[in-house]
Amino acid sequence: GNAILSSYGTTIFEVMSRLSEEHGAINLGQGFPDDRGPADVLEAASRALLEGWNQYPSMMGTPELRQALAGHAKRFYGLDVDWKTETMVTSGATEALTACLLGLIDPGDEVVLFQPMYDSYLPIIRLAGGVPRYVSLKAPDWSFTRADLEAAFSPKTKLVVINDPLNPAAKVFSRGELDLIAEFMLRFDTLAVCDEVYEHLVYDGRRHIPLMTLPGLRDRCLKIGSAGKTFSLTGWKVGYVTAAPHLLQPVAKAHQFLTFTTPPNLQAAVAYGLGKDEGYFADLANGLQAKRDRLSAGLRSVGFDVLPGAGTYFVVADIASLAAAAGFDGDDQEFCRWMTAEAGVTAIPVSAFFVENAPQTCIRFCFSKKDQVLDEAIARLRRRF
Amino acid sequence: GNAILSSYGTTIFEVMSRLSEEHGAINLGQGFPDDRGPADVLEAASRALLEGWNQYPSMMGTPELRQALAGHAKRFYGLDVDWKTETMVTSGATEALTACLLGLIDPGDEVVLFQPMYDSYLPIIRLAGGVPRYVSLKAPDWSFTRADLEAAFSPKTKLVVINDPLNPAAKVFSRGELDLIAEFMLRFDTLAVCDEVYEHLVYDGRRHIPLMTLPGLRDRCLKIGSAGKTFSLTGWKVGYVTAAPHLLQPVAKAHQFLTFTTPPNLQAAVAYGLGKDEGYFADLANGLQAKRDRLSAGLRSVGFDVLPGAGTYFVVADIASLAAAAGFDGDDQEFCRWMTAEAGVTAIPVSAFFVENAPQTCIRFCFSKKDQVLDEAIARLRRRF
Ligand SMILES: CSCCC(=O)C(=O)O
Ligand SMILES: CSCCC(=O)C(=O)O
Repeated sequence: GNAILSSYGTTIFEVMSRLSEEHGAINLGQGFPDDRGPADVLEAASRALLEGWNQYPSMMGTPELRQALAGHAKRFYGLDVDWKTETMVTSGATEALTACLLGLIDPGDEVVLFQPMYDSYLPIIRLAGGVPRYVSLKAPDWSFTRADLEAAFSPKTKLVVINDPLNPAAKVFSRGELDLIAEFMLRFDTLAVCDEVYEHLVYDGRRHIPLMTLPGLRDRCLKIGSAGKTFSLTGWKVGYVTAAPHLLQPVAKAHQFLTFTTPPNLQAAVAYGLGKDEGYFADLANGLQAKRDRLSAGLRSVGFDVLPGAGTYFVVADIASLAAAAGFDGDDQEFCRWMTAEAGVTAIPVSAFFVENAPQTCIRFCFSKKDQVLDEAIARLRRRF
Repeated sequence: GNAILSSYGTTIFEVMSRLSEEHGAINLGQGFPDDRGPADVLEAASRALLEGWNQYPSMMGTPELRQALAGHAKRFYGLDVDWKTETMVTSGATEALTACLLGLIDPGDEVVLFQPMYDSYLPIIRLAGGVPRYVSLKAPDWSFTRADLEAAFSPKTKLVVINDPLNPAAKVFSRGELDLIAEFMLRFDTLAVCDEVYEHLVYDGRRHIPLMTLPGLRDRCLKIGSAGKTFSLTGWKVGYVTAAPHLLQPVAKAHQFLTFTTPPNLQAAVAYGLGKDEGYFADLANGLQAKRDRLSAGLRSVGFDVLPGAGTYFVVADIASLAAAAGFDGDDQEFCRWMTAEAGVTAIPVSAFFVENAPQTCIRFCFSKKDQVLDEAIARLRRRF
């Protein structure tokens, strides 16, 4: 097998989901909701399946969905997007990310990454011959400094990958932080691949700020979104990229050989969904915020030190004191396996999102689950701790 | 943009489909059927959508579909396949191919390719750092010799890519040809990525022989199939790979970062479809064979020299004498554009499937269309020629 790809294990999400299943544990590891998703969106998909076109749509996506993407960008962010030259549909945000990285990086290009980071970025960057440079965010607030960026950016920096809201940290970058990143992007003439799949999963009245909306960045950013996250249908694997034509074109060159296109009935339903009224998006965020609070309170009551979270499906808990009290002295990876087996609850070790300087006592819980599932998870943890 | 990918144009299928649409032409270019697909398979997908799980399935595919793949391999080819370690579902055969190539090739590895070849192979092989070596098949029978293989294989050969039945040539490799390839694979200790998406689209009583079934090749071949082709639902983008565990593992490493997984309701419907009785598969082939004959006869009546075709959605026509009679003296690419604009019928230039030694007078027609569409295409051609 290819030496670079073979050097990476199976993605931690799959590994922990399999382990969870083996132990009959409650899976608060892999990030996905456990509800049915919006009935009207499901019905739109079913109608398009039974009555519509099931052959290859255009490789860039259906005009209908691409127009809806432009409409969404205007409505939520005031962005003017030309759907014909600036939008592309992909088979999930994972494909969108990979198409961006393979399409833009040449061997020797440096890529700035913020740790913790999603586990697909690095293998693909290395496969493309890119050279990673890390900015390590530090718990509990996952902050970074000007000096961190000075150390990471260089004249060879081709692009920076930013995941905002940030999985697993549940961080939403502040305007000040984004401004600082923008300053470095402009100074070093770089691009940004913006993994903004959790754009609608932002809590406490905050609003997501697409990096693309900052002055000077409109034509430097590739914004990636996910229908799976926005409509609580992670299995659909419908993602999208919005970017200036000169950035999207090389990415489309990769996309055409990765999947070529995406099921048209799912595209039709997502186009419909993106047109839903404000209430839908508000309810989505409010519902998840309540779950975040429910799980956080439960975890605290059991003895976890829960870090504040502003977005995503996740909260991070520091296990140091609880593990000490329980007489457990392994690292976060061992703790997650042990907790799955012993307590019947699965979480994801945060160190899996780091290449270096990983914290050893942070684990990530997914709260996008039915209340009774969250409550049962807490009850199980309480029984053990 | 990445220099390798950017050096390739937009895939010829998309280019010609767009051109066809602009001219209101009949699109016999890109390969897809224009019927609705099997109603029961569509209904199975709708049921799974409305009643089933729409969150991430396992990254290797649903157990149900993987078991169906093993059952299909046994039923049609007598192959014993362990679904848990030897099957993987992908978001279309294009993703399957890319996952195989990225997952297996290391920089410097040589890859033997048979021209004409599908246009995604080469860009991905080069992106992986592979070194292509070509065997050029020669019209009208698209044959090759022992000497051709001697020239292409070397101790550095990592794998060979074989598309059988072969798009665009409509060739079905004979047992003798496969035996010769097998001999070289064993002699040079190579693997084969077997693009067998048209496995059920084989005519005149022939049967497709998976390369994997030849002596000594069971654990050297990665067999790729396509639900799009087998169920006439090309937009679904459900593909699959069957291979020995030690081959599938590195390929899964690529897959997890290309798309991760594939919509579960479509997987459920394909699992159902693969279990359909012999009659379904026979009717599919018989129906397409009749369309091949209908279009071939029509094209001949208009003055095209139609090459014999044994499988796939396609027939190839030599345009030399017809173009001369019409006073047209461009190459096949120019002819296809001209025919789209002038006659209102779109085909694909066969030279787009070659890197070197391309024939200049062959074009490919797709016949998987309603009879009245085929007839109207012939009527339009007759009006012009
Ligand atoms: C592709 S499975 C991973 C889901 C996810 O985004 C996560 O759990 O972080
Ligand atoms: C991915 S579009 C190409 C369809 C096809 O296989 C062909 O026309 O050859």
